[in-house]
Amino acid sequence: MSVSKNIKPGVANSITIRAKYPNTTGMLAKIINTISKNGGDMSAIDVVSIEGDFIVRDLTINTKGNDHAGKIIEKLNTLNEVNIQNVSDQTFLLHLGGKIEVNSTFDISTRDDMSKAYTPGVGRISSHIHQTPEAAWALTTKSHTIAIVTDGSAVLGLGNIGPEAALPVMEGKAMILKNFANVDAWPICLNTQDQDEIVDIVKAISPGFGGINLEDISAPRCFYIEQRLKQEIDIPVFHDDQHGTAIVVLAALINSLKIVNKKPKDLKVVIAGVGAAGIACSNILMDFGVKNIIGIDRQGIVSKNRNYNDNIYKKNFAEKTNPENIKGDLKKALKNADCFIGLAGPNIVSKEMLKQMRPQSIVFALANPIPEIMPELIPSNVKIMATGRSDYPNQVNNSLAFPGIFKGILEVRAKTITDKMKISAAKAISSVIPRRLLSSDFIIPSVFDKNVVKSVSENIAAAAIKEGVSRKKKTGVNYYSIKN
Amino acid sequence: MSVSKNIKPGVANSITIRAKYPNTTGMLAKIINTISKNGGDMSAIDVVSIEGDFIVRDLTINTKGNDHAGKIIEKLNTLNEVNIQNVSDQTFLLHLGGKIEVNSTFDISTRDDMSKAYTPGVGRISSHIHQTPEAAWALTTKSHTIAIVTDGSAVLGLGNIGPEAALPVMEGKAMILKNFANVDAWPICLNTQDQDEIVDIVKAISPGFGGINLEDISAPRCFYIEQRLKQEIDIPVFHDDQHGTAIVVLAALINSLKIVNKKPKDLKVVIAGVGAAGIACSNILMDFGVKNIIGIDRQGIVSKNRNYNDNIYKKNFAEKTNPENIKGDLKKALKNADCFIGLAGPNIVSKEMLKQMRPQSIVFALANPIPEIMPELIPSNVKIMATGRSDYPNQVNNSLAFPGIFKGILEVRAKTITDKMKISAAKAISSVIPRRLLSSDFIIPSVFDKNVVKSVSENIAAAAIKEGVSRKKKTGVNYYSIKN
Repeated sequence: MSVSKNIKPGVANSITIRAKYPNTTGMLAKIINTISKNGGDMSAIDVVSIEGDFIVRDLTINTKGNDHAGKIIEKLNTLNEVNIQNVSDQTFLLHLGGKIEVNSTFDISTRDDMSKAYTPGVGRISSHIHQTPEAAWALTTKSHTIAIVTDGSAVLGLGNIGPEAALPVMEGKAMILKNFANVDAWPICLNTQDQDEIVDIVKAISPGFGGINLEDISAPRCFYIEQRLKQEIDIPVFHDDQHGTAIVVLAALINSLKIVNKKPKDLKVVIAGVGAAGIACSNILMDFGVKNIIGIDRQGIVSKNRNYNDNIYKKNFAEKTNPENIKGDLKKALKNADCFIGLAGPNIVSKEMLKQMRPQSIVFALANPIPEIMPELIPSNVKIMATGRSDYPNQVNNSLAFPGIFKGILEVRAKTITDKMKISAAKAISSVIPRRLLSSDFIIPSVFDKNVVKSVSENIAAAAIKEGVSRKKKTGVNYYSIKN
Repeated sequence: MSVSKNIKPGVANSITIRAKYPNTTGMLAKIINTISKNGGDMSAIDVVSIEGDFIVRDLTINTKGNDHAGKIIEKLNTLNEVNIQNVSDQTFLLHLGGKIEVNSTFDISTRDDMSKAYTPGVGRISSHIHQTPEAAWALTTKSHTIAIVTDGSAVLGLGNIGPEAALPVMEGKAMILKNFANVDAWPICLNTQDQDEIVDIVKAISPGFGGINLEDISAPRCFYIEQRLKQEIDIPVFHDDQHGTAIVVLAALINSLKIVNKKPKDLKVVIAGVGAAGIACSNILMDFGVKNIIGIDRQGIVSKNRNYNDNIYKKNFAEKTNPENIKGDLKKALKNADCFIGLAGPNIVSKEMLKQMRPQSIVFALANPIPEIMPELIPSNVKIMATGRSDYPNQVNNSLAFPGIFKGILEVRAKTITDKMKISAAKAISSVIPRRLLSSDFIIPSVFDKNVVKSVSENIAAAAIKEGVSRKKKTGVNYYSIKN
């Protein structure tokens, strides 16, 4: 199966072609036909101007990517009557000047405004915080703001592309936090990949933030960095590539088990990809009661007698999983499995392999944009299929978790985020779909369902209080006054 | 002269007292009279409710500070008929939840928005920046955003109060940058005061920013940190306490010299306070052509034979100033001086000392809130008097400089900020007042004069291009497109 066959034209690859051509009957049809025949998906046709016998139009077309867009342009150029004046890229245009900004919560337009927000008035606020450090939570942005910290070492599927190239992704994440959960987030893209230096930097910048989202930091460094920070700073640290994924996978699994009527302790789960996400998934599944997990990496099944000298995290994974210590390849691992979780790469699983799984099996093929196996190919013993894609049912998407999680921990000014809080977030996501609406095509809510953030944030806040890691015991506005 | 006598009631110390009292003729007058007699300045009187024979009002009063507010409340409590229900502090109320937030430049409300702003579309932007690093300036927030970095070691006049307590000041600065110059700024308040670690941190976080504003970092560490950063990163680094002050002082001096008709090379300038601001002022004045500068610190006149082992910056200052190597106290230094620049503390200068200065002298008494000498006390040989206060003419205020400076350097994507650029900023500020309007009471424009930011930013941008430190050769929008 070729990659291009799996990718559909989409707005993420939308271009606008400005074309001038004779304003005669049939010309537009000819142009549209050329675009369609070459796989372009017309999305808008606008008139720019009419110049004598000629017309100038903007043709907006969803494509499959740069190469495909180039091919469409090339084919249009073969039409003699058509003169292409310009091609613009919708996604690039949208990114001009970046996607986030810093705003004041009120305007400074008079001297009085300035003397309260800045000197001399602000001096009293600073003095008060100096005397009563906890007041920083009430009187600064700290209470509603997190830092999104990356070193650009493992960005999306692009790998180690560095801090500048990572910035658009972090800005996108900040947008989602604001739009979905009204959480303010600022990206910190670091020009170092030294794990101890990253720890020191995050520690140093932490006073101004209520939480830290570690993002797109490669394994195993991400484990070390998170572990040390959790011990050394007093605000929650959450590596989304690990725990965001794990939480949403568990949410999907909770609802899947209701449908197939199986219990965590009876499951055999195969996880392909034993990096940040794979290890976090195995941990949350074990916390949830799953006993039999088999991990697979490029060398095959992760078993106890391999050499993990360089990676204590994978060694630890090997010790806690694969209770029968089986060895071999993915095909062997999948035999009699109940659940496959793919966090690896495109097309590594075949229909034949899945046929080896038990009846009423669950397959989460989460590699993006091309899953481990396409949903069209699953055999009939697979009852539930989920991917990371938006164009199939059951999209497992981290955006279901992190906005509500940060909203919840900020709400109660949590000091940390515990494993039980993570499980509560998974349950909160799964609970958004009422039992009667659950089906094999609807195990996970949409990221645009407003109940998701509400459910997750409320449950995380309640769990933080129960776990004894919250600074606030209840939520609500703090009216700051001098009591007489 | 006592301190309280110098402070007037102001909105920065505004409180609102909620009081219930019998709704009878004369009661309100009695209350207002009590407030006024005790120095409170009524600013608003609102009805909250009428409850039978009683009325509840909110009385908003400008005070001189916490102690003064307490005294007014105490006196009102002596009125038997008056029941104070609550007292709230306007400046504290305004600070609840902080003063800045992060916003998206467009909303994410559909899946299409998300697929362009986040995955999968953002992957193409990241790949492009990875291949063409300069594209980060066009496609991310970097182009219009700076970091305001502090370690909380020298905040306002409050001293070493730490990063959390510094945050409200940094937020205020971010507000001014946005409101005055449309520059986005994020505060980074560091939990370390190790100068090398601060350098390393700023270097590491620099990829996401177009400039660095160092703020409220104590001398001499601030000099070392700025110097190293200027050498080691490729975006402008500007320590506002040094150069912002120096630029505005020079702007005020340029206009003053037009009025008193003196030339820089003929001036004897005395600077009280040889810290960050004092040293930066002396440097910019020398760059501008002033030859004879005498510095004064707590030990007296800074001369060449004192011991500066621990402070190479002050040693360097001593070597470049005081050409006749005079020794002694402030009184001696002021003899035959043309200009006094106070960057030290309250009431250190007497009328008698100033009488020793030359005719047509210039006095900038910039300590805040209490100047080195109050304007009421200056003798007649002083022609021009400026302070840092808003309630006297000629307010020397850093907010005249930094917003336009950062706007200008971001506009041309400058790599650094040079000494000539700083002088151009000073000239730009001074030029906002037309020659015909200049007077001894009007040497410096208001921070609310919109021409200030325009003049400063345009001149800084032009100077950056002339100095060869700009990435862009001209300003204007970059239309991002694939040319066919």
